[in-house]
Amino acid sequence: MLKPEVSSKLRAIVGDRYFREDREALVAHSYDGTPMLQSLPDGVIYPSSTEEVSAVMKVLQEFRVPVVSRGSGSNLCGGTVPVQGGVVMVMHRMNRIVEVDEENLTATVQPGIITADFIQHIENLGLFYPPDPSSMKISTIGGNIAECSGGLRGLKYGTTKDYVIGLEAVLANGSVIRTGGKLMKDVAGYDLTKLLVGSEGTLAIITEATLKLIPPPKTKKTMLAMYRDLYGAARTVSRIIESKIIPATLEFMDNPTIRVVDDYARLGLPRDMEAILLIEQDGDPESVERDIARIQDICRLEQADRVEVAESREEAERLLTARRSAFTALARLRPTTILEDATVPRSRIADMVLRINEIAQKYNVTIATFGHAGDGNLHPTATTDARDAEEIHRVEEAFAEIFEASIELGGTITGEHGVGLVKAPYLEWKVGEPGIEVMRGIKAAFDPHNLLNPGKMFAKSSKKRVVLQHG
Amino acid sequence: MLKPEVSSKLRAIVGDRYFREDREALVAHSYDGTPMLQSLPDGVIYPSSTEEVSAVMKVLQEFRVPVVSRGSGSNLCGGTVPVQGGVVMVMHRMNRIVEVDEENLTATVQPGIITADFIQHIENLGLFYPPDPSSMKISTIGGNIAECSGGLRGLKYGTTKDYVIGLEAVLANGSVIRTGGKLMKDVAGYDLTKLLVGSEGTLAIITEATLKLIPPPKTKKTMLAMYRDLYGAARTVSRIIESKIIPATLEFMDNPTIRVVDDYARLGLPRDMEAILLIEQDGDPESVERDIARIQDICRLEQADRVEVAESREEAERLLTARRSAFTALARLRPTTILEDATVPRSRIADMVLRINEIAQKYNVTIATFGHAGDGNLHPTATTDARDAEEIHRVEEAFAEIFEASIELGGTITGEHGVGLVKAPYLEWKVGEPGIEVMRGIKAAFDPHNLLNPGKMFAKSSKKRVVLQHG
Repeated sequence: MLKPEVSSKLRAIVGDRYFREDREALVAHSYDGTPMLQSLPDGVIYPSSTEEVSAVMKVLQEFRVPVVSRGSGSNLCGGTVPVQGGVVMVMHRMNRIVEVDEENLTATVQPGIITADFIQHIENLGLFYPPDPSSMKISTIGGNIAECSGGLRGLKYGTTKDYVIGLEAVLANGSVIRTGGKLMKDVAGYDLTKLLVGSEGTLAIITEATLKLIPPPKTKKTMLAMYRDLYGAARTVSRIIESKIIPATLEFMDNPTIRVVDDYARLGLPRDMEAILLIEQDGDPESVERDIARIQDICRLEQADRVEVAESREEAERLLTARRSAFTALARLRPTTILEDATVPRSRIADMVLRINEIAQKYNVTIATFGHAGDGNLHPTATTDARDAEEIHRVEEAFAEIFEASIELGGTITGEHGVGLVKAPYLEWKVGEPGIEVMRGIKAAFDPHNLLNPGKMFAKSSKKRVVLQHG
Repeated sequence: MLKPEVSSKLRAIVGDRYFREDREALVAHSYDGTPMLQSLPDGVIYPSSTEEVSAVMKVLQEFRVPVVSRGSGSNLCGGTVPVQGGVVMVMHRMNRIVEVDEENLTATVQPGIITADFIQHIENLGLFYPPDPSSMKISTIGGNIAECSGGLRGLKYGTTKDYVIGLEAVLANGSVIRTGGKLMKDVAGYDLTKLLVGSEGTLAIITEATLKLIPPPKTKKTMLAMYRDLYGAARTVSRIIESKIIPATLEFMDNPTIRVVDDYARLGLPRDMEAILLIEQDGDPESVERDIARIQDICRLEQADRVEVAESREEAERLLTARRSAFTALARLRPTTILEDATVPRSRIADMVLRINEIAQKYNVTIATFGHAGDGNLHPTATTDARDAEEIHRVEEAFAEIFEASIELGGTITGEHGVGLVKAPYLEWKVGEPGIEVMRGIKAAFDPHNLLNPGKMFAKSSKKRVVLQHG
């Protein structure tokens, strides 16, 4: 519970309606998109301006109250669960598109705007903002920035980080910083813009962002390639890149995913295939035609059993449905779905999928794998039951070993979901003890009293590394 | 002078040949590419491995000796002048290409490799590394990373930051961190990779870098457009981008630059033009043809007096010579050339050039302006004489006012040269007092004893802002 003095100060800043301590509000903000995590905050606040955010932070810093800023809470790393209580700051009221500058190809937005709404607005103007996380229909741009969200177009177009060129943010002490601007180049001091992207609400509260827009591709083509041999699919991925083609999308589904998706969406997918690749290329018509023709050749060369190129937008949609339904289809199987995002160099995808399968077998858990093959970002997804503590323990052990395998293959513990609460015990595996030390130092420089999303990114203690038994 | 104990410890690490305290070595490393700055170090060390760098840092930290790491010292911000003495660490011996991974499209290199040598090697393999700073024939990749170098291709392809995806670096205390990897996506903790790029040797010593490569464009076309009206040229820049064309290169020269270049290179440039744009587009042949045709239309619409499209590689080279000789031609005029890099949103280029001209007139100094119009990164260049203290004072006042103008137009004090010594007094104008505070905190987290390139980025006191008189 907050001290009455704190509550009344907060209420004075935003008005009665926008500061809540009722049970309903607290419960509604006690969890996020991550399964099995919940913790009640002491209050929920909905600021409407940078000035209000700044005033709120001054009060919270004075009384040493933790704060978790959030958008829709669709993250998958427990990034917005208020594990140390305090105040949840919901950014939904700050949801304006402040400006679209067509001369400079930039958009300036408040953090609370829904990603898909922003993208729609931009596309209506004939422009393009590539980051397209799967959660885009509910996620906010602020949340995307906090987590450095990726998506299906990451391979060719990069992730959120590549499009954020300026930020306004409120520090723990309430002061406001402005980084970057409508500038394609700015080397005035350390790059605070890129540092804040992906900082998961632990360094500052983002109150405005300037985003780079690009011209949209003129056309797009979609195809599927199906393989009886996992390595054939993986080699196809490498060969495409080696042929100096960077597709817009290059997605992967393994056999368990194919079966589940087919049960769910009844697409008539061949259930005996070991892997399906979904490939899209966009750009000028001649280039797209040429690339798609060359990619088909590569697929066949690598023994694809079937290659389908969509001849119409409707057919493309049908092919895309296979990949898009992966998560939903898997989520229907059992009560709890845990979606991970171990990432490896793209040349190691086949090795990684095989290791995931070995590990799943070893721990007797069900894991299906799909994801962004082109950038090595896989989503091994466990279907399980949170009520079965013993099984959940096995799932957790399996994931620990999967993270270990991805590090061993030159990869990372998280490619696009973030560290949050879930990956904190594993962060040291990737960045080492000196890396953690430096990051803790950065955290302290921004937030000396550890009030901004405390308990995230840094674990009390790192998990011990598993000794892998395989081969 | 270093304590004999320090010298002998350093000598023991790298061998007699690679630690020098003789006057010749000290003088040779007392300055860099920036005019009018010089300061003697106490020693010069040439490590050959990460282990040696780590061992050296342990000694320097124990004895609290400052260290300036450098490549060729071609920077223009005084970034590698050892203003507080200590040891200059020259990275030239660590110049290997460790690996080019064609499956993952990455290269792993040591910092001391010459940029042009690296690019040549990559291009021979049929791959592409876009950052092309003008100094590339002498600069090192490590130096490019420290300064986040740009170049002529920045508009379409971005700068060094966009291609560094992994780093190995030695901290002030000698411990080694590894960030990122051969990974297109990695959100494990704060983005130390992007933070170290552009950190000017103040946070860590970079000992290895993993760089992203991309497929090269299939073809390229080059054109010049000449204008009697500065605004026509500036509007052309905006119109091209608004037409959803991002050229590979979009460079600008003003009238004083045109005259000097023509005197120097005898290209028969029309000396009465107010501006010349050099435009290049690359990509697939059909797309390039289409873009160049559309760009010509735009140039004519905006009253270009003359438009020339190169029909051959030789003709393209001739057109490129005009822009490439700008600095050399200007440098011949008078003993001292000061090249700046004020940067504004690209829609404000014409305003900025006019302001520069007003300011030059006000202070009675000679400033010619050329630069990267497409990304708003201008190079106002003063030709002066370092021996004339009174004139130099006027030049400095003029530049202070130019920086002020660029901030006022939504720009920054440096687009690609870095802060170093030269811009340190102005940094607060861009990032504000809270921004400086945060940056100082980051610096202290990495380097608590302030040994890594001390005296750079942060000034003892910020310069007072000029009150602008114009209009």
